[in-house]
Amino acid sequence: MSTYPDVMEKLVSLCKRRGFIFQSSEIYGGTGSVWDYGPLGVELKNNVKARWWQAMVRERDDVEGLDAAILMHPRVWEASGHVSGFSDPLVDCKACKARFRADKLGDAQCPRKPSKKPGEHTDCQLTEPRLFNLMFKTFMGPVEESASVVYLRPETAQGIFVNFLNVQQATRQKVPFGIAQIGKAFRNEITPGNFIFRTREFEQMEMQFFVEPGTDMEWFETWKAARLEWHHALGLDPSRLEFHQHTAQELAHYARAAFDINFDFGGSLGFQEIEGVHNRSDFDLKQHQEFSSKKLEYVDQVQNKRYLPWVIETSVGADRVTLAILVNALREEAVPGEQEGRTVLGIHPALSPIKAGVFPLTKKDGQPEMAEKLAAALRKRFPVFYDDAGAIGRRYRRQDEAGTPFGLTIDSDSTKNDDVTIRFRDDMAQIRVSSSRAADVIGAYLAADHADAVSSKSPA
Amino acid sequence: MSTYPDVMEKLVSLCKRRGFIFQSSEIYGGTGSVWDYGPLGVELKNNVKARWWQAMVRERDDVEGLDAAILMHPRVWEASGHVSGFSDPLVDCKACKARFRADKLGDAQCPRKPSKKPGEHTDCQLTEPRLFNLMFKTFMGPVEESASVVYLRPETAQGIFVNFLNVQQATRQKVPFGIAQIGKAFRNEITPGNFIFRTREFEQMEMQFFVEPGTDMEWFETWKAARLEWHHALGLDPSRLEFHQHTAQELAHYARAAFDINFDFGGSLGFQEIEGVHNRSDFDLKQHQEFSSKKLEYVDQVQNKRYLPWVIETSVGADRVTLAILVNALREEAVPGEQEGRTVLGIHPALSPIKAGVFPLTKKDGQPEMAEKLAAALRKRFPVFYDDAGAIGRRYRRQDEAGTPFGLTIDSDSTKNDDVTIRFRDDMAQIRVSSSRAADVIGAYLAADHADAVSSKSPA
Repeated sequence: MSTYPDVMEKLVSLCKRRGFIFQSSEIYGGTGSVWDYGPLGVELKNNVKARWWQAMVRERDDVEGLDAAILMHPRVWEASGHVSGFSDPLVDCKACKARFRADKLGDAQCPRKPSKKPGEHTDCQLTEPRLFNLMFKTFMGPVEESASVVYLRPETAQGIFVNFLNVQQATRQKVPFGIAQIGKAFRNEITPGNFIFRTREFEQMEMQFFVEPGTDMEWFETWKAARLEWHHALGLDPSRLEFHQHTAQELAHYARAAFDINFDFGGSLGFQEIEGVHNRSDFDLKQHQEFSSKKLEYVDQVQNKRYLPWVIETSVGADRVTLAILVNALREEAVPGEQEGRTVLGIHPALSPIKAGVFPLTKKDGQPEMAEKLAAALRKRFPVFYDDAGAIGRRYRRQDEAGTPFGLTIDSDSTKNDDVTIRFRDDMAQIRVSSSRAADVIGAYLAADHADAVSSKSPA
Repeated sequence: MSTYPDVMEKLVSLCKRRGFIFQSSEIYGGTGSVWDYGPLGVELKNNVKARWWQAMVRERDDVEGLDAAILMHPRVWEASGHVSGFSDPLVDCKACKARFRADKLGDAQCPRKPSKKPGEHTDCQLTEPRLFNLMFKTFMGPVEESASVVYLRPETAQGIFVNFLNVQQATRQKVPFGIAQIGKAFRNEITPGNFIFRTREFEQMEMQFFVEPGTDMEWFETWKAARLEWHHALGLDPSRLEFHQHTAQELAHYARAAFDINFDFGGSLGFQEIEGVHNRSDFDLKQHQEFSSKKLEYVDQVQNKRYLPWVIETSVGADRVTLAILVNALREEAVPGEQEGRTVLGIHPALSPIKAGVFPLTKKDGQPEMAEKLAAALRKRFPVFYDDAGAIGRRYRRQDEAGTPFGLTIDSDSTKNDDVTIRFRDDMAQIRVSSSRAADVIGAYLAADHADAVSSKSPA
C-alpha cells in the first residue's frame, strides 16, 4: 500500500472529460482493456515519445533509429523463445465456465457469484492449470492454416536484433553502439487493467546497446543511471521512483543482471515497473544466428577479431510513463478566497499538450480580435487553445485541468496599451507583458525545461 | 507506361545500402511484403508525418488530433461494411495449388510453369471465384472461438467516427471541424508489391472533416485544393501529380464524390494513388448510430437543430508518400571533370533525414577535434553525420545518396581562421562561413522551406 493516494478513478474521469484518453469503441461497450488517445492525450504521448527520441537518438552519435514492422517472420518468435515460453498458466471453472490465471487466483472474482469476495472459489470446480500463449496469432494469406500463422509482436526488441547487421553495415557504426525504436506491441493478457497500465495493445520505447563482451556491466551501470535521470527530468517526483533489482528467481535464464525502474502509482497499485534495464548477454543474437543460419558476428577491424556483441537493453512502456506523468501531476487544492477548489494537472510544461490558453476577457471592444490575432501568431510556435466562453475563472480552471502552463488574458487595457496578462498555472501569479513579447516570454519558460518553470518565481 | 524511368530496382538497392528501408525479417528470408524502416528511413518518414501533423492539426484551430487503437470492437467492422464487403474474389488452381485474384488473372504467374507468360493459364484448372475478406483476424482472450474474434483495423477512419462525439464534447468544437490521426492499418492483400507501395502493414494519415449537410461540396473543393498544395510543398514534381476523379463505377455507393491524388512512379507502374479525398456523406455516422444504438447527432445550439454531419475525408498513405518522395528525388548525373558520376537523393531539405555531414579533411592537425566540436553543437539543433573515413569526394558522395543537403568541411585553414566550407548537395557549390555561424546559415536555408533551398543560389 502506497503512502500516496489512489487517484485512478478521478484521473479516468478527467481524462475522458478533457479529451486525454477514451475507452476504445466506447459506443459499442468498449474493447477489453484497449484505450484511444484523444486530442490532448495524443499530444502528451507524442511529447513523451519525441523527448525520448531526442535524448536517445538525435543527441547521441552512438545510437541509430529504427522502425521495424509489427508483423515478423514466425521463426523470429521460435528463436526468441516466445512460441515455447511466453505463456500464462490458466484454469477453467467447470461450474461457472470462467477462466482465471492460476497464479492470480487470489484476485479472481467468480462471475456466477459476484457477491463473493475475490479469491473465494470454494464452490468452483477448477481444472488443472494449462499454459496459454500470450501472443496474438493471425494468418497471412487467405488460408487459415498453420503454415500461414504470423504473430503480432509481443515486444519491439526482436525487430532490432534481426536488423543488427543491416543497421551496423548501413551506418558503419562501431561497437559499442545502440539501435532504438518506438512502436506498438500486443499481448493477449488474461487479466489486464489499471487504466492504461496493463493493456493488450501498448507502445514500447526500446533501445538495445551492443557492446564488447566483458564491458557489459560497465555499460549496464551507465545506462541504468542515464535512464533514471531521464525520468527525473520528466518532472516525476524522485520520491516516487525507485530501482528494483531482479532476484535470482525473477531473472531470465539468459540475463546477467536486470533492474526495473518503478514508479509509485499510489493506492493499492503502489510501485510498479515503468522501465526495465537488462543485461541480455548475447542470448538473442546467438539464437537468431542459430535459427536463421546467418552469421551475425560483428567484425572488429581494429582488434582484428569477430564476436557476438552483448546487449544492454532499456525498455520503457510509453503508455505507463504517460500514466505516471498524469498520476504524478494530478492534484486538487483549495484556492485562497474562493469557495470551490481547483483541479490541476501540473505537467512539466515541455510535455503539456497545450502550451497557452488565450482569453479575451469580454466578447466586445476589440478584445476577441486582438486575442484571435495573438492566438494565431502563437500557434505557429506551439499548440494554443482559444476560449471566449464563460467567466474567466472557469476558463482558467478548464486549462488548469488540461495541464496548460500559461494563460494569456486580453482585457480593456490591452486594446489600449498592447499589454497582456500572463497567468501561471501552478501558483496563479500574473505578470503583464507586451503582446508582441508574449511568445518569446513563454518560449523562454519552455526552453528553461525544468519542472517548476511554470511558477512566476522562475526567471523568464 | 510512364514517360519517367522505372527506378524501383535502383531505389530498393540504395535504400538497403544507405539504411532507409530493409526487408522485414530479412535473415529469415523476409516476411511477405512487409518492410522495416532503417535509421535514415525512420527519420524521413517521421519528418513526413510531423509535417502533415503540423499542417493538419497544429496550425489549425478547427482540427483535433486523435490516436485510436488498432484493435477495435468487432461490431465496428459490421457497421462499416468491412465484414460483409471488404473482399477480393479468389480462384484456386487444382493443378498447381496456387491461388490468384480472379480480377487480376492477367498478371498472375503459374508457379508450376514459371517459364510461361503471366496470364497464360491454359493448363490450369481454376475453381469458381470465391470471396476472401482482406481483414486480418485474431482472437482476444485465450480461446479461439467466434465470440472472441477481433480484427486488425484495415483503415484508421473508423476510430475517428466512433470517437466523434467524445472528441466534440471534450474540445467543445463546433461543426465544421475535423479529427486527424496517424496510425498503422493492415490488409491481407493477395497480391501486394512494388516495394513499399502496396504492403500488408502500412501507415495512414487520415482526417475526417465534419460539416453541415449542404455545405459538403464546398468543403470538398477546399480540401481537394489544400491537399494537392501540400504534396507540391513536399517538393514533388507538379508534372508527376494529377487528380483522378472516381467514375460512377468506381464510386462507393455512399460517396457523393471522390478524387485520388495520383503520383507518377515511373515505368510500368506509372500514375498511382497516394491520397484520396472523399465526400462520404453521413454514411459512417449513420451506420454506427444504428449498430451501436447510440445517438451520434451533433447539437447545433446556434441554429437550434440536431443533425448527423457529413464527412469530407482526406486519406494519405504515409508509406506511399515516402516512396513518392524517394522516387521523385533519385537522380544519377555526370559530374563535370570526373569520370564517375554521382547518385543524388534530392529530397526537400526539411524532409532530409540528416541535415548536415561534418568532415575533417584530414585526421590530424586539430581538424577532427574542431569537426567533432562543430558536429556536437549542430546536433543540438538537427541530425548530423560525422565522417572522417576515406577521401573527401567519397564522403560527399555517400551523403549525396543519403539526401543530406549540406556538407561542412574543416580544412587546414579552418583551424587557423575558424571558417568552414559549406558544400551544397544539389549544385555542389561551396561557400565559406565562420564556424560559429554555420548552424544559423543552415537553419536559415531549412526555414526557407522550399524545395530548391539547397542550391547556393538561394538566399541564405
